[in-house]
Amino acid sequence: MLATEKNRLGLLVILSSPSGAGKSTLAKRLMAWDETLRFSVSATTRSPRPGEVDGKDYYFVAEDDFKKWVTDGEMLEHAQVFGNYYGSPKPPVEAAIQEGRDVLFDIDWQGAQQIGKSALRHHVLSIFILPPSIPELRRRLETRAQDDVDVITKRMEKSWDEISHWDGYDYVLVNDDLDKTEDRLKTIIAAERLKAAQQPHLLDHVRALQSQFEELS
Amino acid sequence: MLATEKNRLGLLVILSSPSGAGKSTLAKRLMAWDETLRFSVSATTRSPRPGEVDGKDYYFVAEDDFKKWVTDGEMLEHAQVFGNYYGSPKPPVEAAIQEGRDVLFDIDWQGAQQIGKSALRHHVLSIFILPPSIPELRRRLETRAQDDVDVITKRMEKSWDEISHWDGYDYVLVNDDLDKTEDRLKTIIAAERLKAAQQPHLLDHVRALQSQFEELS
Repeated sequence: MLATEKNRLGLLVILSSPSGAGKSTLAKRLMAWDETLRFSVSATTRSPRPGEVDGKDYYFVAEDDFKKWVTDGEMLEHAQVFGNYYGSPKPPVEAAIQEGRDVLFDIDWQGAQQIGKSALRHHVLSIFILPPSIPELRRRLETRAQDDVDVITKRMEKSWDEISHWDGYDYVLVNDDLDKTEDRLKTIIAAERLKAAQQPHLLDHVRALQSQFEELS
Repeated sequence: MLATEKNRLGLLVILSSPSGAGKSTLAKRLMAWDETLRFSVSATTRSPRPGEVDGKDYYFVAEDDFKKWVTDGEMLEHAQVFGNYYGSPKPPVEAAIQEGRDVLFDIDWQGAQQIGKSALRHHVLSIFILPPSIPELRRRLETRAQDDVDVITKRMEKSWDEISHWDGYDYVLVNDDLDKTEDRLKTIIAAERLKAAQQPHLLDHVRALQSQFEELS
């Protein structure tokens, strides 16, 4: 049997970046580019904000349930941020990988590190998006929200904490042009899908070659 | 300073495959695609065949010189095949990597393994090309050469030895369609050029971000 696109394994595509570097826009563009991509919806114990939809933006869960998932090994990664729990449920990811569907994660460096140590680490593609400059990042945070100065300062500090963990990702892209960064992301994902680790059926192909070689000898 | 294409490091792009799987054709197409690619010309102690040009097809060298290069650490990899020495001189590769030029290697699994353990291993992109089938491989070997049956049998055995080392390469492609394989190779090379390990100037960018963050705080 030939190794085909169909029988490849899915990738865990991790996108991390400080808030305001364009990550969410890029994630949306990737989802529009390839409808086979699954987005990993995080679970959280924080309350929904106006307009947020359960099961789409987040799975909104009670703290007891969240903690039970963690102890049951049902969370791929989790962390506490500003007093709330966030995490990536494991079962939908494992199912997608086996179906040959890539899963896109919009998570921070802590989550990326945890997934990077998980049993699925050989299928991880991690990408960090850097902003072109800090003034530009601040401008985007200011334009975007109605937040007051204190909140923006707090976000900038969290942004710097995130940026300081840029190292250790497979790819690090400076998002100075959304279209260019989008193209680069597509190229990277297209290539990584071809990785030997994503193509378990290559083994069947090599076994078939071996049988053919033995028949000829 | 922004990380640009210009100040990236070059890759060592290793193509391995059994003879007859299309590797030479693919290597030529890649060289035609990107004129910044350098081809690593191997050194050998075997005699030139009619039409072979010194410095283009091979560096034809005396056995004493070859052995001196090896002991002086000037060979990135070397091996003895059918009584002759073959190897990849290191200095031109190191120079190209620093200039941000990728170097293409058409070498066997022994060479690939040696380069994979060298000091340049973090810049290696290794790709193995598999034939669609053994009868097809044999047909290509028979059509190509005026070799007699014994030589072809010997080559088929060497081919199988090569195929049996397919595992351990970053990428393994089944060449059932030259154009498709060529496109895949280009995608893979384009992506790997963006790897964090190939972009040392990212560090300058992050340092600039840090200065900007400290100024704002």
